[in-house]
Amino acid sequence: VVGGGGYVAGELLRLLARHPHVEIAAVVSRTHRDRLVHKVHPHLRGLGLKFRGDYSFDADAVFLALPHGLSMKVAREFVGRMKVIDLSADFRLSRELYERYYGPHEAPELLGKFVYGLPELYRERIRGAELIANPGCNATAAIIALYPVKDAVKEALVDVKAASSAGGRGGGMASLHAERAHVVRVYAEGSHRHEAEVLQATGIRARITAHAVDMVRGLMATIYLQAPLGEAELFRRFSIYSREPFVRLVREKGWGLQRLPDPKYVLGSNFVDVGFTGSQGEGGATLYAALDNLVKGAAGQAVQNMNLAFGLAEAEGLEQLPLFPA
Amino acid sequence: VVGGGGYVAGELLRLLARHPHVEIAAVVSRTHRDRLVHKVHPHLRGLGLKFRGDYSFDADAVFLALPHGLSMKVAREFVGRMKVIDLSADFRLSRELYERYYGPHEAPELLGKFVYGLPELYRERIRGAELIANPGCNATAAIIALYPVKDAVKEALVDVKAASSAGGRGGGMASLHAERAHVVRVYAEGSHRHEAEVLQATGIRARITAHAVDMVRGLMATIYLQAPLGEAELFRRFSIYSREPFVRLVREKGWGLQRLPDPKYVLGSNFVDVGFTGSQGEGGATLYAALDNLVKGAAGQAVQNMNLAFGLAEAEGLEQLPLFPA
Amino acid sequence: VVGGGGYVAGELLRLLARHPHVEIAAVVSRTHRDRLVHKVHPHLRGLGLKFRGDYSFDADAVFLALPHGLSMKVAREFVGRMKVIDLSADFRLSRELYERYYGPHEAPELLGKFVYGLPELYRERIRGAELIANPGCNATAAIIALYPVKDAVKEALVDVKAASSAGGRGGGMASLHAERAHVVRVYAEGSHRHEAEVLQATGIRARITAHAVDMVRGLMATIYLQAPLGEAELFRRFSIYSREPFVRLVREKGWGLQRLPDPKYVLGSNFVDVGFTGSQGEGGATLYAALDNLVKGAAGQAVQNMNLAFGLAEAEGLEQLPLFPA
Amino acid sequence: VVGGGGYVAGELLRLLARHPHVEIAAVVSRTHRDRLVHKVHPHLRGLGLKFRGDYSFDADAVFLALPHGLSMKVAREFVGRMKVIDLSADFRLSRELYERYYGPHEAPELLGKFVYGLPELYRERIRGAELIANPGCNATAAIIALYPVKDAVKEALVDVKAASSAGGRGGGMASLHAERAHVVRVYAEGSHRHEAEVLQATGIRARITAHAVDMVRGLMATIYLQAPLGEAELFRRFSIYSREPFVRLVREKGWGLQRLPDPKYVLGSNFVDVGFTGSQGEGGATLYAALDNLVKGAAGQAVQNMNLAFGLAEAEGLEQLPLFPA
Repeated sequence: VVGGGGYVAGELLRLLARHPHVEIAAVVSRTHRDRLVHKVHPHLRGLGLKFRGDYSFDADAVFLALPHGLSMKVAREFVGRMKVIDLSADFRLSRELYERYYGPHEAPELLGKFVYGLPELYRERIRGAELIANPGCNATAAIIALYPVKDAVKEALVDVKAASSAGGRGGGMASLHAERAHVVRVYAEGSHRHEAEVLQATGIRARITAHAVDMVRGLMATIYLQAPLGEAELFRRFSIYSREPFVRLVREKGWGLQRLPDPKYVLGSNFVDVGFTGSQGEGGATLYAALDNLVKGAAGQAVQNMNLAFGLAEAEGLEQLPLFPA
Repeated sequence: VVGGGGYVAGELLRLLARHPHVEIAAVVSRTHRDRLVHKVHPHLRGLGLKFRGDYSFDADAVFLALPHGLSMKVAREFVGRMKVIDLSADFRLSRELYERYYGPHEAPELLGKFVYGLPELYRERIRGAELIANPGCNATAAIIALYPVKDAVKEALVDVKAASSAGGRGGGMASLHAERAHVVRVYAEGSHRHEAEVLQATGIRARITAHAVDMVRGLMATIYLQAPLGEAELFRRFSIYSREPFVRLVREKGWGLQRLPDPKYVLGSNFVDVGFTGSQGEGGATLYAALDNLVKGAAGQAVQNMNLAFGLAEAEGLEQLPLFPA
Repeated sequence: VVGGGGYVAGELLRLLARHPHVEIAAVVSRTHRDRLVHKVHPHLRGLGLKFRGDYSFDADAVFLALPHGLSMKVAREFVGRMKVIDLSADFRLSRELYERYYGPHEAPELLGKFVYGLPELYRERIRGAELIANPGCNATAAIIALYPVKDAVKEALVDVKAASSAGGRGGGMASLHAERAHVVRVYAEGSHRHEAEVLQATGIRARITAHAVDMVRGLMATIYLQAPLGEAELFRRFSIYSREPFVRLVREKGWGLQRLPDPKYVLGSNFVDVGFTGSQGEGGATLYAALDNLVKGAAGQAVQNMNLAFGLAEAEGLEQLPLFPA
Repeated sequence: VVGGGGYVAGELLRLLARHPHVEIAAVVSRTHRDRLVHKVHPHLRGLGLKFRGDYSFDADAVFLALPHGLSMKVAREFVGRMKVIDLSADFRLSRELYERYYGPHEAPELLGKFVYGLPELYRERIRGAELIANPGCNATAAIIALYPVKDAVKEALVDVKAASSAGGRGGGMASLHAERAHVVRVYAEGSHRHEAEVLQATGIRARITAHAVDMVRGLMATIYLQAPLGEAELFRRFSIYSREPFVRLVREKGWGLQRLPDPKYVLGSNFVDVGFTGSQGEGGATLYAALDNLVKGAAGQAVQNMNLAFGLAEAEGLEQLPLFPA
């Protein structure tokens, strides 16, 4: 694990430390080199891990949990030496889309070589892959919700409710507890870069408006369509996920505490819950997706990709059920 | 104040107890009759108020803070005897709209006699009025955001993020702290009754999807339009509020902690903050409104209406600035 | 699992469903009989479990997750038929202590037959036991912190900070989110019944003052002693836990995010973190213990006891690391 | 207001802007000079205030809301020119106590000239005072709770539950929302500097153990005494506060939502709620105090002191009732 000081790295370590087929060879952080890992990730106390500052370790795979823009510089160190699973945005897009949304790329020769690591869509390509670009959390939620309707929809409004852990550990004043608690703060106004991933995977133009809400983990996407899709048709379309190990359809009526996806019920797990409200009258349908931004939205999906890349059982190390209530 | 045991009543008492021109004549609650008010509203300890169970008091005005459906039964007790400010949904709509959205009404003869108490739109009608129907919290946010664009828009998608105090004090298991914390729970899927109020006030058909988020007070409405309205035009249109005492336009760029409305910055005040994102490319504009559901969304607006009805300064008793951070 | 509708039962099911040596034979709830389990525990969607209302199932062990006072009525149904792990307070105490703290008992003949299921103190007795009384969450924290100093201390002040899930799912108005959020509410003033367990296990008279704080899961006990114990001595005394799989000593100085136990870093895990502040000048030492009230404070410890009772590896099914941040 | 960028300054401005006898002459912040105040304090949008970077303004009084250690450097600029109300720890102690707890002082000649601004104890000295040192939040809570028993008590254990706004706006990683939410984090282990204030005001040696809990505003002090004081005696002793405008005694039995002080019920107000549990058996009594750390614990008390210093009504500008629920 490279970039070991952030939340995604902490979550990777949490999962990998209990994965039956994984041994953690190295945890790299230049900032924290030579520190004990639990000084930075106190929940991991007792594992006996230590940060190192260099890349000269041997391993079968490396997870890059680095900030966007830094991964593209570091990746070359590992390509060819071991499998690379990159959790940044650096290798998720085609060159054309990357440059349109982000600008010039520093390792353009690698752009076409990474597989987009969304198993529900690209499972076969991921099996055995050497280079995997792990999707963004917003994109994972939006793509999984939109994929079943992609032939019926051209545009979508995606209203995201996001958690503070998505902002990482380097925030400034606006990320302080007293500032960030109790907010509903718009931080992306219809131009979020995760749109490029949705476009690439589904052909749908998604306008993402993202709101920070008072939640440490989780992500909810409410997706408004213009297309008039009824409930029966949506049930049929979403049945493509009926055998997916990590996609649960939530669309309940009658007695019960839950009717539609809610990040509260996936906390700590690799599930993405999806659901919908069918069209009523002239309105379009609404889709919903809820996931844990650090698991299915980052580290869990990366482990899922690793399992596929190495021919392991896809759910290995990811069986943990959601924590509730929490 | 009748219906004195709920959050809206508690908030009314908080405001009225410090209003320079108000004396609280009676606090009525059948459930709590003869109890001290602070046993139910501990923040009001020290005011020396007591609940009574009957309606035989004299006053210049009565606030009905009763559940929907009960107000229509109780209102007749007061009509003619004193001014009535009703905070339920019972008298907000025309008879036609009421019956379409709610069904039969038990006091239909009164329906046309109540003024809809949204001062920003109906100030002149409210002045001196005898019967006032106080708007709902979702409707207040949506109407104030949509009113400036009403001639350019026919439909709107309203994505509401709502607080737990909006659910009142009578909730069941789903309202317990352990269940309600950390949720993003959809509780209205495009068919919320507040839509009728928006339709009546603006002519716009609003589809409201409401989400419970982890917040005790506050309300955020993100409103998606199809209409391509640019920022310059939106600035011009929203300038109609430039003299409104309780509407603040928030649309900042450059350095600063806030760019768009956020309920965090109106907490405890009667402000409704509005803002917008102008159209980009082919997309429509997005509007935002944030308010405190118990103040501008309920008790504060009721006091504002009372001030107008009695010819007092409109902001009397409502000058309190938002509490931050909280 | 009997008493399947509460939080402890939900947590038991979460752990047992992933336990390699467990098959869930029955989930009993009279309230929810014939409902699907995920209607009540939405996080468990996908397990295909259903509630039943009767006790006529066969199993090797039963977990009673019933309210205090009900367990003693139901236990007789199972004693002799299978191992019983009771999570209520009904069988934790000797008859004498039970009657002093709670009053008459309805199954006094069983009182002496249950083993007190705190493995760190009573591991050998628990191995192979037929009847196990699972400790309370406050008692677990207090006893594990106090046990190393029991010969040096006669009294202790225990200041507990408790989570809302500890209150169960049957709360009234005071447990609503809007009421329970942001509180520091004293709910036990030096006379908490968990004191009896501490007394029985350590001989120390603990005065427990418990505060509800804004936390769904977790428990922190700050324990004030009069005894002047220095840090070196405390390190020595707490070294008795050095081989315990679920007790971590936290007493850090220098750089790092954590210095002392904090429930944030044990969330979802079976760890209990312990630490201390040695005496300074004339003051006494202070001890700290943090745990997840639903795991080490309830369901996790019950599974740990089950493992011991059946001769399984003690940590089987409990290896999950804490979820952080959350 | 000097030091205008922090939470205390924001709170001062919130109160002063609505104070009937105050005009805000200047808001000074070197960091934010020439910025509009609402860029830093978004809740104050609409007041039209701007930061300045210099001290050359004229006013009747200045509030210093500066970090500890900086006030002592800046105070000289104002002493003699106008009344000074300092909110830091720099002038609260006698020289002897200051040096024992903090070390050398840079303006020792001023130390004896400041009045300790706790009106409940020193009202007469504060009237007309030129230099006032505003107490700390922990000290305010502890002193007001302990003062009635000061002749019966020599030592006290003070267990504080503190809010994130107490940490100010300059926090590092440990203050981020994802890190600071859901904690019970010990940050002062029996050696907190506020003890010096308690000692000076009451003669009692208080050992303060402070815990950060998940709360933006508020402060709860649970104070354990060894002295065996019964409830009747405590009622008698606490009756000294019966005419205090901002001290409320909370000690309820029977039906009701509140039994003892809780910061939830003082939010945004200048109240400090006090209560107690009388001795039971051999144990000592326990005292409780709850306040809003930014109001009675800082800015509100400063305004109360200002009112006294200028001969205004003591509660002027501070009548606001607590916000509930929030």
